[in-house]
Amino acid sequence: MKENITEVKGVKIIPLGGLEQIGMNITAIEYEDSIIVVDCGLSFPDDDMLGIDLVIPDVTYLKDNISKVKGFVITHGHEDHIGALPYVLRDVNVPIYATKLTIGILENKLKEHNLLKTTKRKVIKYGQSINLGCFRIEFIRTNHSISDASALAIFTPAGTIIHTGDFKVDYTPVFGNTIDLQRFGELGKKGVLALMCDSTNAERPGYTMSERTVGKVFDNIFAENLKNRIIVATFASNVDRVQQIINSAAKYGRKVVVEGRSMVNIVATASELGYINMPDNTLIEIEQIKNYPDEQLVLITTGSQGESMAALSRMAASIHKKITIKPGDTVIFSSTPIPGNEKAVSKVINELSMKGAKVIFQDTHVSGHACQEEIKLMYALTKPQYAIPVHGEYKHRMKHAEIAQSMNIPKENIFMLSSGDVLEVSGEKGKVVGKVPAQGIFVDGLGVGDVGNIVLRDRQHLAENGLLIVVVTLEKYSNQVLSGPDIVSRGFVYVRESENLMDEAREVVVNALDKCLSKNTSDWGKMKNEIKDSLGDFLWKKTKRNPMILPIIMEV
Amino acid sequence: MKENITEVKGVKIIPLGGLEQIGMNITAIEYEDSIIVVDCGLSFPDDDMLGIDLVIPDVTYLKDNISKVKGFVITHGHEDHIGALPYVLRDVNVPIYATKLTIGILENKLKEHNLLKTTKRKVIKYGQSINLGCFRIEFIRTNHSISDASALAIFTPAGTIIHTGDFKVDYTPVFGNTIDLQRFGELGKKGVLALMCDSTNAERPGYTMSERTVGKVFDNIFAENLKNRIIVATFASNVDRVQQIINSAAKYGRKVVVEGRSMVNIVATASELGYINMPDNTLIEIEQIKNYPDEQLVLITTGSQGESMAALSRMAASIHKKITIKPGDTVIFSSTPIPGNEKAVSKVINELSMKGAKVIFQDTHVSGHACQEEIKLMYALTKPQYAIPVHGEYKHRMKHAEIAQSMNIPKENIFMLSSGDVLEVSGEKGKVVGKVPAQGIFVDGLGVGDVGNIVLRDRQHLAENGLLIVVVTLEKYSNQVLSGPDIVSRGFVYVRESENLMDEAREVVVNALDKCLSKNTSDWGKMKNEIKDSLGDFLWKKTKRNPMILPIIMEV
Repeated sequence: MKENITEVKGVKIIPLGGLEQIGMNITAIEYEDSIIVVDCGLSFPDDDMLGIDLVIPDVTYLKDNISKVKGFVITHGHEDHIGALPYVLRDVNVPIYATKLTIGILENKLKEHNLLKTTKRKVIKYGQSINLGCFRIEFIRTNHSISDASALAIFTPAGTIIHTGDFKVDYTPVFGNTIDLQRFGELGKKGVLALMCDSTNAERPGYTMSERTVGKVFDNIFAENLKNRIIVATFASNVDRVQQIINSAAKYGRKVVVEGRSMVNIVATASELGYINMPDNTLIEIEQIKNYPDEQLVLITTGSQGESMAALSRMAASIHKKITIKPGDTVIFSSTPIPGNEKAVSKVINELSMKGAKVIFQDTHVSGHACQEEIKLMYALTKPQYAIPVHGEYKHRMKHAEIAQSMNIPKENIFMLSSGDVLEVSGEKGKVVGKVPAQGIFVDGLGVGDVGNIVLRDRQHLAENGLLIVVVTLEKYSNQVLSGPDIVSRGFVYVRESENLMDEAREVVVNALDKCLSKNTSDWGKMKNEIKDSLGDFLWKKTKRNPMILPIIMEV
Repeated sequence: MKENITEVKGVKIIPLGGLEQIGMNITAIEYEDSIIVVDCGLSFPDDDMLGIDLVIPDVTYLKDNISKVKGFVITHGHEDHIGALPYVLRDVNVPIYATKLTIGILENKLKEHNLLKTTKRKVIKYGQSINLGCFRIEFIRTNHSISDASALAIFTPAGTIIHTGDFKVDYTPVFGNTIDLQRFGELGKKGVLALMCDSTNAERPGYTMSERTVGKVFDNIFAENLKNRIIVATFASNVDRVQQIINSAAKYGRKVVVEGRSMVNIVATASELGYINMPDNTLIEIEQIKNYPDEQLVLITTGSQGESMAALSRMAASIHKKITIKPGDTVIFSSTPIPGNEKAVSKVINELSMKGAKVIFQDTHVSGHACQEEIKLMYALTKPQYAIPVHGEYKHRMKHAEIAQSMNIPKENIFMLSSGDVLEVSGEKGKVVGKVPAQGIFVDGLGVGDVGNIVLRDRQHLAENGLLIVVVTLEKYSNQVLSGPDIVSRGFVYVRESENLMDEAREVVVNALDKCLSKNTSDWGKMKNEIKDSLGDFLWKKTKRNPMILPIIMEV
């Protein structure tokens, strides 16, 4: 079939991250001379990204089209949706729109990065719309493991796109109201072009439990541990969870101590903005705990993921300056380990147990993401023409695609995108029409992007095998050895136990140099290769190890 | 109370590993001039043990008492119970006693290490006893995720010790019979001094499912995937699991291919010894798969834990030489990720999904370890005087201790030991009376024990921050710079993007050297420190990174 030249122009949907690398959620929506950006999150490094602190999205495409970019619209205040903004704003300084708590949390970040003055931002209410270029964007109430989460209805000349952000359906939320299911239904009735919906829990059947169920579990644990100090670790950003711990504390006459930098920050922000209701005389400073008996104390702390520097981990390892774990302490993990953190969490639990603490982690957490029936509900309400599974690993998005098919979305209208894909959709057709840069960029200390794959490969090599440095000083022209060869090793073997090995290694280098001299090889590159090869062979034979070998030739 | 000098002498129970470092199971039992050793396993390295291949137990205590050591008695053929033998036998070459399959698997190992000729070993049957020094040891049938697992009843002059090894209660095992519950009861009636019982699943309520239930799940999956090639990944050592896959294959007229080095080895050994019943014309070579359509093939492979070099992981990453994953392939993970492997397993599942394979991992595995009710059953049968929880992390052993208390073992008779503790028990009392060396020893390539904490700390530093080498050649006596300073970096920053930084760094070193010269500092240690400190400060300020700095001074 020949393509019709006068066809309706599509809107472009361009995920710039978040599909291969979980966390780095960012999507550009483009129509003619307007671009808006949904979210701007960061990823935490994989195990093989040695020494890397963070991974942020590559926004080359936004920089190259900076005149079109009208603003960021942010669904909620989690790191994987706002965390890269302080880095990206340096190049893409456009206004940010989000709900009140989201802006509040973001402002803490901007303050840390000294960007508060230079960043335009605006608080948007649920149901409110903003116009950015040719787009109108409406913020719709959802439920999630942080308050003030929004879905976005993006009205474009080509049709309406709904982006759910991270969401669940909570009929009895702790703060605020149930997700605005009516509005999703209304929009669906009018016609939705594309649905970009959360896939995180697509493998889980049924419904996600209400946040409120956790509060009852807390009450039970508090009732069963009347004599013990209670310590609860949870995600700092889970403001509703913190609220429920405070509620149980108040009910059982306990003072609340908040510990851990991000916990202190977010609780302060959430209280100030009215998202946490702290009864008078409940909160005390950590220094005051000595004035209260154990049965009158609750600590709310970071560290539920076993993060080595978080407050709970430091308590477990006896390196926390102010809290000492003791027999009888009841420690509640109010979270589930994120994949990859299981071993770290186990380590902390073991350490706490060894100190005599009782550790509880059953039924003390519910997910913030929609399970299968909730995903189906979203499709039933919005009945989109196209489905674009977002958020979650490939296997989760694949399962989501199956669910979409079961909800009568034709297979060819379901797009399993990769980061960087440019998907163009209109009422007539949807097609991937291009590709833009969308690799993650490594942040290491102050450096953004100066650590690449070569540096990482070297770090991996050094990590696994250590290194040997061979230094030799040669006389100019004659290439006679004036000093050395000296061998310095790090991370290879404990040298005092391997002096013979080092002596033999030096011998190997001397022979390699002799060989070069006798062949009149004066090219330093060749000499270095000769040293590397012969020493490498020798060490492999002797040790079955493969250290990095760095020959350095000095000339006098 | 004054101690009675004429009291009955106790038997010493000395765990030499396996308590802090999971896996490295080894326990010495000592009475007067006799020592026997129960199991001799290895651990796989933690994430922070960079470049380490294996961790084996420190057997200094056995070496120091070598004349007393009568033999190894092995409960079953898993790596964490036999894996360190090839290393330990070099120093502690005493006979090994175990059941037939265990000896068969061990012989493969001995062959690889060229130890077959020099190692005495003897196959013991269930119910059979051996006398070693003053001990009599009886092998008792149990069930586990490998055939031929045994508990040990160790009859000592001070009383009977029962060591369960890893066990579960399987009333309908795939191969052989149910655990010999009668014998445990009989021994209990006669009086058991101490029970050393598996804690791995102590946190799980109820009973572990029978291995046979997995077979039914396989049948269902085979019935639902009549047109697809089926690939099943499982633990090579789970011979009964492999048998059930073969059974389903035979039932559905499929040929079986075995892939992955350890899978091929163990299936060969188990078939040869009669632990796997392979119907005629079922097994084919991997090269033959091209002769059969997909619906007539089953691959049984290693890689169920996402191990990067295992066969399934190589297939998923498209680097397997003989198998290419294609849409329609049905891949079954017949295992649960061991804590720490979750992310690696997810990666493989995502890669398989991207290639269009269907991945199944629900209900396709059961544990090999006793849950709470089975642990209680063991206590009800043996009614020991002392309980010594073994196998499992601290939190598991702690839970086990609670279970033992609920089974009326007095708290003071339950011993939560650490590796190296020397526990002496008799009918009159039990007490930790000493401590012996029991740190893990690192194996890296051919080196055993030559990589210690200093080397690991260097590797960690190099891994996270990379390194800068500063080389300078000085004139003897005058200390004038003849050549350099040259700076070589690896794993720090990508140098071409940071030439300015390197130029400035060199300047910093020149200044540091000038400072030393102007102060007439000729001590190389001091000069190196000056270079290190000033360059370190400079780089931290510029990059917030902390590379290893190695100053090398050459003299001509």
